[in-house]
Amino acid sequence: MRVLSGIQPSGALHLGNFFGMMKKMIEYQEQEDLFCFIANYHAMTSVSDGKALAKGTLEAAASFLALGMDPEKSTFWVQSDLPEVQELTWALSNFTPMGLLERCHSYKDKVAQGISPNHGLFAYPVLMTADILLFQSDRVPVGKDQKQHLEVARDIAIKYNNEYGEVFTVPEPEIDDDVATVPGLDGRKMSKSYGNTIDLFQEEKPLRKQIMRIVTDPTPVEEPKNPDTCNLFQVYRLFLDDAGVEELTQRYLTPGLRYGDVKQELFEVVRDFFAPYTEKRKELLADPDGLRKTLAVGAEKARYVANKTMRKVRKKSGLVY
Amino acid sequence: MRVLSGIQPSGALHLGNFFGMMKKMIEYQEQEDLFCFIANYHAMTSVSDGKALAKGTLEAAASFLALGMDPEKSTFWVQSDLPEVQELTWALSNFTPMGLLERCHSYKDKVAQGISPNHGLFAYPVLMTADILLFQSDRVPVGKDQKQHLEVARDIAIKYNNEYGEVFTVPEPEIDDDVATVPGLDGRKMSKSYGNTIDLFQEEKPLRKQIMRIVTDPTPVEEPKNPDTCNLFQVYRLFLDDAGVEELTQRYLTPGLRYGDVKQELFEVVRDFFAPYTEKRKELLADPDGLRKTLAVGAEKARYVANKTMRKVRKKSGLVY
Repeated sequence: MRVLSGIQPSGALHLGNFFGMMKKMIEYQEQEDLFCFIANYHAMTSVSDGKALAKGTLEAAASFLALGMDPEKSTFWVQSDLPEVQELTWALSNFTPMGLLERCHSYKDKVAQGISPNHGLFAYPVLMTADILLFQSDRVPVGKDQKQHLEVARDIAIKYNNEYGEVFTVPEPEIDDDVATVPGLDGRKMSKSYGNTIDLFQEEKPLRKQIMRIVTDPTPVEEPKNPDTCNLFQVYRLFLDDAGVEELTQRYLTPGLRYGDVKQELFEVVRDFFAPYTEKRKELLADPDGLRKTLAVGAEKARYVANKTMRKVRKKSGLVY
Repeated sequence: MRVLSGIQPSGALHLGNFFGMMKKMIEYQEQEDLFCFIANYHAMTSVSDGKALAKGTLEAAASFLALGMDPEKSTFWVQSDLPEVQELTWALSNFTPMGLLERCHSYKDKVAQGISPNHGLFAYPVLMTADILLFQSDRVPVGKDQKQHLEVARDIAIKYNNEYGEVFTVPEPEIDDDVATVPGLDGRKMSKSYGNTIDLFQEEKPLRKQIMRIVTDPTPVEEPKNPDTCNLFQVYRLFLDDAGVEELTQRYLTPGLRYGDVKQELFEVVRDFFAPYTEKRKELLADPDGLRKTLAVGAEKARYVANKTMRKVRKKSGLVY
């Protein structure tokens, strides 16, 4: 089973990225044929600072590798090292009804937020479709907010196959409701754009500062607390096994719990959990050429699969003259 | 001065293509740094039959070469042999306000004609912009119907340069009102989509048949005719020098002119004019591998220039990490 996923290098990675996607990918490589990429083309829709994007790309790659991405077991590359995906985007554009893109929530939402829309944002789902179809992906783990984009990808694949025969695998979404949404400091979905993140790979001080900012309710110390509605609990539980969750629940239900104490505990848990990865990441970033080499090998692995698809597409479309 | 132009390989070439664009290109190569390409990516917006597109691509290339395109003097290639243009399209998409594309007449017109719009048609002007900017074109000869697209290209180039410095030459349109519009059989602009064309490189019989179908007015033989409103005259004049036009005008103003006679004359003129080119085109098409080799050399010439642009773009956008 080929599983594909990508991550945008558009800023610091946070717990939402880790539990929502990265952790799962790293687990997947044990059982599945994992294709995982740094989506720097996608990031261009929001990042125009080239230096920031280049830096973010290397950092995202180092982060993933530090966390356990194994380029031997999986195919791991930087999106723009396979510009083929842009040619496929064009081929697919001609099988993409405008209505399909106009109905995409993520575009409509950004417009509603007052973001001056440009064509990159609008065409984003076609590029995402090309990412998926180029590698004949069977399954794509996505958050709920990306579910519609995956439906677009399926629609386009089916439309193309109807015209030219079975060129593309029609991808299946995989939505894990359990970990799909990590709450941020304020209880909304953790997201860079909300400024409510707990970032990975931080120094102790800023990490502690972020965790101390988690919003809790004003229940007095001497009363029992409700774990179900508590962001702090919802973040903490991500680091706990079932027994740990049960224990923390009991502490919440017992009068006397101080949120400040729980925050301090959570800070130590997060710090200790990520300490070895932060160290590893530093080492990787200290040797950018080595990192680039790893990514180049990954791109070659990806290209082998991409070429097979593109040979078919170019032939079907009539680009081989 | 770098002049760029492209032609779609989406069907038989006709007098409109020849006088509107091809003839001018062939003349340009004497004085200018001409970049001329077969726009097969663009054709994908209307042609889904891959075999037809592949055949059309080779035929368009052979036609151009037969008519005098000289790959030594100019840079002549097939668009899809430089997929780099698609990567540039993506980079530019992020500097293309949606409103700019939504206002394009050619898209709006096709929608109004009831063509079910797909994203390829909508994104067409961005790809056209990438064609122009990739080669740092100074001037782009366009028909009136393409004038708006060139304004789009200028807007995007300026917006990109404002962000990143002088990366792109801002292209100037060149609209030659004199030959911009060749009338078709029915007096409307000659266009494949109107079915009113006189095609190049035909056998005598079908050529004569097309010319005999030119619509003329019902003025009786014994009365003087009006050359200004006569399609037949307007087509014929394309093959005449000033003295020839003057002579034909006098014949129109003199009672006794039979349109049928003029059509027969025009048929012979067109046949004789294109006979050597038709012969040359046949020879070229008889050696498709030779043709492909010529085009591959052209693509290499084009790539040399494209690479210079793309190195800058990839660096500015942050794709070089």
